[in-house]
Amino acid sequence: MPNAIDFYFDFSSPYGYLASTRIEAIAARHGRLVAWRPFLIGALYKQLGYVPLEQPGKRAYLLHDAPRSARAMDVTLRFPPSFPEALIAPARAVYWIADRNPPAAGAFAAAAFRAYWAEGRKLTDPQVVAEIAAQQGFARDDVLAALADPAVKERLKTETDAAIANNVFGSPFIVIDGEPFWGADRLDQVDRWLATGGW
Amino acid sequence: MPNAIDFYFDFSSPYGYLASTRIEAIAARHGRLVAWRPFLIGALYKQLGYVPLEQPGKRAYLLHDAPRSARAMDVTLRFPPSFPEALIAPARAVYWIADRNPPAAGAFAAAAFRAYWAEGRKLTDPQVVAEIAAQQGFARDDVLAALADPAVKERLKTETDAAIANNVFGSPFIVIDGEPFWGADRLDQVDRWLATGGW
Repeated sequence: MPNAIDFYFDFSSPYGYLASTRIEAIAARHGRLVAWRPFLIGALYKQLGYVPLEQPGKRAYLLHDAPRSARAMDVTLRFPPSFPEALIAPARAVYWIADRNPPAAGAFAAAAFRAYWAEGRKLTDPQVVAEIAAQQGFARDDVLAALADPAVKERLKTETDAAIANNVFGSPFIVIDGEPFWGADRLDQVDRWLATGGW
Repeated sequence: MPNAIDFYFDFSSPYGYLASTRIEAIAARHGRLVAWRPFLIGALYKQLGYVPLEQPGKRAYLLHDAPRSARAMDVTLRFPPSFPEALIAPARAVYWIADRNPPAAGAFAAAAFRAYWAEGRKLTDPQVVAEIAAQQGFARDDVLAALADPAVKERLKTETDAAIANNVFGSPFIVIDGEPFWGADRLDQVDRWLATGGW
């Protein structure tokens, strides 16, 4: 079995969302699984001392470019009025689910991305996260208990630290057998890399 | 005659170079001219208080990704040992040439990009810049005199200020009838925008 593709992302990243709509199909085409690896981009930016959205020109561009790129991909994307905000609960849930049923973690993450970016749901709310996880067969009360579990909280911190240590510096960030690709605009290269083994 | 496409770039930008190899063909396909608009990205970064290359992870990625993207495009790209460095003389020359023979400005700029990124020539050297301009029919001594002319120096400052005032925040940065596209990875969208009038 070849290595899984590492798909690093933050749920608050519109480009992470765009990539989430295609990554499983790309991987499947080449016989690969996807390891969905949410991390907290706020912790990364704090360490870098840099927040892209604090630059007015870049912020205005992002708000214009992400929906335009979504339309080009036939994907529904609407910035929630609450953007940007830390989306911690769904990130915790991904790792908790992955430990119990790995394929369900990707399905949950993709559904959570859609809930926030296409359906306008409040992904900061553990109840909403539990509802989405319930669609993958997990009992809501179990999910709510997990989201409040110190071990689950610690897990996300550990994973975030590991992502930063692995030189992840943005979202989405895709690693294929050690080869890094940053950005939803590298999906075509990701597809080609998997098809050819590199160039 | 439709508006020219504004192509903002800094000669020291590898992604500016990649875009320079395709922008004229894309524009021509849709009956457009290209206004080549070099600016000094150092002045921009100073104003933003941000230098991407000062982030070790992003720097290492850029040094790996730009040649990889170039190979994917069948373009020769080698980082000069002196990278990064301010490339001011060729930027001054573009505006001086554009005032005398507009189509020659693009041909000169594309040749200067290739000289630096594919041929390893010292683009900080006015003599090298004058040689490249000579291939477009300009007398070397005229070019050397222009590069030292306070009015030509001032022109590049004015153009850099205007680019920043127009919300240009990176290189390359392409504007079509007011619609902004940032990055060499938006060339396919630029092509589609010109073909369809937008989406």
